[in-house]
Amino acid sequence: MMEKNESKGTWLTYRPDIKIQDCTIRDGGLINDHCFDPSFVKAIYETDIEAGVSYMEIGYKASKQIFMPDKFGKWKYCDENSIREVVGENKTPLKLCAMADAGRTDYHEDILPKKDSVLDLIRVACYIHQIPVALDMIKDAHDKGYEVTLQLMAISVVKEIELMEALDLIAKSPVTAVFIVDSFGALYSEQVRYLVNIYLKALEGTGKEVGMHAHNNQQLAYANTIEALILGASRVDATINGMGRGAGNCPLENLISFLKNPNFKLRPVLKCIQEHIIPLEKEIEWGPKIPYMLTGMLNMHPKEAIKMRAGPNRNDIVSFYDQVVQQES
Amino acid sequence: MMEKNESKGTWLTYRPDIKIQDCTIRDGGLINDHCFDPSFVKAIYETDIEAGVSYMEIGYKASKQIFMPDKFGKWKYCDENSIREVVGENKTPLKLCAMADAGRTDYHEDILPKKDSVLDLIRVACYIHQIPVALDMIKDAHDKGYEVTLQLMAISVVKEIELMEALDLIAKSPVTAVFIVDSFGALYSEQVRYLVNIYLKALEGTGKEVGMHAHNNQQLAYANTIEALILGASRVDATINGMGRGAGNCPLENLISFLKNPNFKLRPVLKCIQEHIIPLEKEIEWGPKIPYMLTGMLNMHPKEAIKMRAGPNRNDIVSFYDQVVQQES
Repeated sequence: MMEKNESKGTWLTYRPDIKIQDCTIRDGGLINDHCFDPSFVKAIYETDIEAGVSYMEIGYKASKQIFMPDKFGKWKYCDENSIREVVGENKTPLKLCAMADAGRTDYHEDILPKKDSVLDLIRVACYIHQIPVALDMIKDAHDKGYEVTLQLMAISVVKEIELMEALDLIAKSPVTAVFIVDSFGALYSEQVRYLVNIYLKALEGTGKEVGMHAHNNQQLAYANTIEALILGASRVDATINGMGRGAGNCPLENLISFLKNPNFKLRPVLKCIQEHIIPLEKEIEWGPKIPYMLTGMLNMHPKEAIKMRAGPNRNDIVSFYDQVVQQES
Repeated sequence: MMEKNESKGTWLTYRPDIKIQDCTIRDGGLINDHCFDPSFVKAIYETDIEAGVSYMEIGYKASKQIFMPDKFGKWKYCDENSIREVVGENKTPLKLCAMADAGRTDYHEDILPKKDSVLDLIRVACYIHQIPVALDMIKDAHDKGYEVTLQLMAISVVKEIELMEALDLIAKSPVTAVFIVDSFGALYSEQVRYLVNIYLKALEGTGKEVGMHAHNNQQLAYANTIEALILGASRVDATINGMGRGAGNCPLENLISFLKNPNFKLRPVLKCIQEHIIPLEKEIEWGPKIPYMLTGMLNMHPKEAIKMRAGPNRNDIVSFYDQVVQQES
């Protein structure tokens, strides 16, 4: 069934090339405007170290011109002193990264030279029409001394001809990995397989890796992440207990239970869930719900579903269905 | 990527051969000892008719010698008058079925001749060592005039040599379909693909169909059901809102949203969830939770996890992890 692939695993082997990135603070921050207490961020940081996670994404490098600092928590900006308050000099094997959103980051100013930062990796995120600015951001971060990866968002609405052109440009850039980002949680496994093969082929011979960032709108985040891995993706995003905007993400605990790499440890993640995440469930909501399934199924951004779940008619799924079906263009 | 298969679909076609069975009342009944009010069962029945579901599983035909009638609701036994109270003569396209568990059904007595019953199909369920009694039950139900299918349970712990022999015997029996039953929610997609191919090959040329019954312990019920369909399975079990014992089942609403068959309707299922299932969530619990993920990952029956979730330490997932890892034989 499986393609011949150097990165192929079996049920009884593990692939040492697989790197997990924990996006709990960054994607989870979209639920509460990035207002996590530093002690919570520290708990996630310590969990990731114990669990053997490869990278921790600690937030955004968002523009303070666009996003007013009185409206968001510090993980929206990830100022150097905010990060160091939690990680110190980060003398650990865990690498740290932050997301820089094309068109929403003052990257020339706000991303410091690597020598002045504890961040290891800048994750440039963009939509397909922002590829030119993303390439400039990649160059900027690379020149400053960082590892750089690209998250091409909303992949389920990108046309192949544009994707091919984008991958061709990205293949020549200094990124170490390119992620398939299923922002709408719209992809089925067949589509994941189709896309992973396109990415692998486009990046063949460059040494660049393919990554997967899935959302759980249709309860397929974990399944799609596994599919991407099986075909040869080697970077995967996950969050603790699937915490993330709307339907959430691929749960880190599921991913670690699937991978058999003895360097990844499940128990610290469970401990973190018990002590820090379950209490949080009383304050903020995430995870698969019917409205997210509907926007995922219709390949729409989940924002309408998020709004609906925050309002007084949060269980009126029939009206929501009628509304989104009417909206379909 | 996909096997050549007559039953192959694409993203823009639908396969008219696919039949959905709604197991909400039967599998959901395992949460509340089958004590659903007849008005609730009628709501599910009417939803299934409107949604275009092929079969509705209304409960078990359990032995009253083994399961005392003062301890269970009527859907544990599915006496003819209980069913008729809900469905009358069932003059609808929806077919009705009940599950007969090997070793736990007085099938000679309790399964009436088809002419005296509104049931259309008997679903014989057995573990691998019960194949001989299952074959007798199949013959009994078939001779009485029913369509019969076989659910071979706990497939994730069945050895291939025994599975091959069982399928060889089943291929000669009068069943119309054989189901891959992932009782422990332990299978990954690769294993589903492996098993579906084994079943299809063993039943090739007999006209018998392959079915999939998945559990959601690892959040893979829906994904695994889709994988089975893609490879050529044509009968799939689902439950409304995934309601079922422990982590629950493949959600019917997801399945209908994936299939593009215009005969299946999503809106009636959403209406049912809003009016009947969401209120029920206050009384009974189901759906993916960490303890179910752990038993699924370890290929164990979820009963320990169900017990843990019902007790005072329902959120003590670290102790539960330590307990099940110690138990691993």
